[in-house]
Amino acid sequence: MAHKGELTRAKIIDQATQVFHRKGFLSTTINDLLAATGTTKGNLYFHFSGKEAVAAEVLRKAHERFRHFLETSLQGPTPGTRLENFFRQALERNRDKGFVGGCLFGNTALEASDNAPQLAALVADVFTEWIESLQETIAAAQASGEVRSDLAAADLAGFVVSALEGAIMLSRLNKREEPLVHVLDTLRRMLDLKVAESPVIIRHSPSARRRAVGEEG
Amino acid sequence: MAHKGELTRAKIIDQATQVFHRKGFLSTTINDLLAATGTTKGNLYFHFSGKEAVAAEVLRKAHERFRHFLETSLQGPTPGTRLENFFRQALERNRDKGFVGGCLFGNTALEASDNAPQLAALVADVFTEWIESLQETIAAAQASGEVRSDLAAADLAGFVVSALEGAIMLSRLNKREEPLVHVLDTLRRMLDLKVAESPVIIRHSPSARRRAVGEEG
Repeated sequence: MAHKGELTRAKIIDQATQVFHRKGFLSTTINDLLAATGTTKGNLYFHFSGKEAVAAEVLRKAHERFRHFLETSLQGPTPGTRLENFFRQALERNRDKGFVGGCLFGNTALEASDNAPQLAALVADVFTEWIESLQETIAAAQASGEVRSDLAAADLAGFVVSALEGAIMLSRLNKREEPLVHVLDTLRRMLDLKVAESPVIIRHSPSARRRAVGEEG
Repeated sequence: MAHKGELTRAKIIDQATQVFHRKGFLSTTINDLLAATGTTKGNLYFHFSGKEAVAAEVLRKAHERFRHFLETSLQGPTPGTRLENFFRQALERNRDKGFVGGCLFGNTALEASDNAPQLAALVADVFTEWIESLQETIAAAQASGEVRSDLAAADLAGFVVSALEGAIMLSRLNKREEPLVHVLDTLRRMLDLKVAESPVIIRHSPSARRRAVGEEG
């Protein structure tokens, strides 16, 4: 029975992720969740105290997947290559989604910032962790001479995340990849990113890619 | 009577702007609009065909104000100074709001992109116009030697807007000005923005500033 409960919970989270990603947290209703998950109200409330609890669990799971994405995309023989691989994977990830849904964390940040402090805090943690990962890679790339070193790694990392979030929003709005492609190219130039050898691209398996569609980041 | 109708319409738009800015378009209900505007349902539907029509008018008015903001902030004796003034005004504008509400156009872009094509088209126009204004100023600043000229002005303009939108989101999420301040500083360095003389700051009047609170951009 515990096993069945786990499965139901996982299924609710899985379906709720799609609904939240497309409609946003604020405008998703309990009825939307019931319709999407095929669950009864009693069953949903047996597993979660309400919409916000479902949303918090959706964000926690999305955070885990995003952490995995960061770990697998920030890979390569040198720090500069790791950064370049991350840029390429970020584009591929959004291209795979057809620029639908955008970034779940960015969307939630905008909705939750002034309305749902608990969700806002979860999302703030994701951004802090993302910026710290990039900062570490950028600092290493500065030390190896692959990124300009006249600006602080922390500032560059925060800048990269800001520029990517804005570009993902513009690409989603226009359903065209150009805003994101141009921002990535400009970032490479602005960082003086030099990549000595042809970067190793770590590709997600097709099934991992399918799972990522309509999810986060 | 026409005059009274105009006033009612303007009052509905004014109050609806606050509600939409805080709650977003998707999750704002007709009842929210009635409560905020103190209007009867009959009166609201006399003036607007529904929520989306109110939202479209809110966006059109916000677009007018934002166009005025661009015109008054992109001012100065040289193109580089105009860009610097715009950066300062953008910070001041968000600081005045206490980083509540964020950018109405960015918020709407995220909500409308996959759900409300008419609103998405209105917002796409705002971003196109914004990028074009900056592109013109940046091209002039490249010609005057105040901005690096090894990258296309169009790419730099899109880059600036993306970075600002992402930074406004992060500042709003954390209710701190640092993300936006650091992104602006980094932008100045990345653009090699040189401003020969002390920039002229065009300040909004206090009443204009109050009007801007909780509104756009």
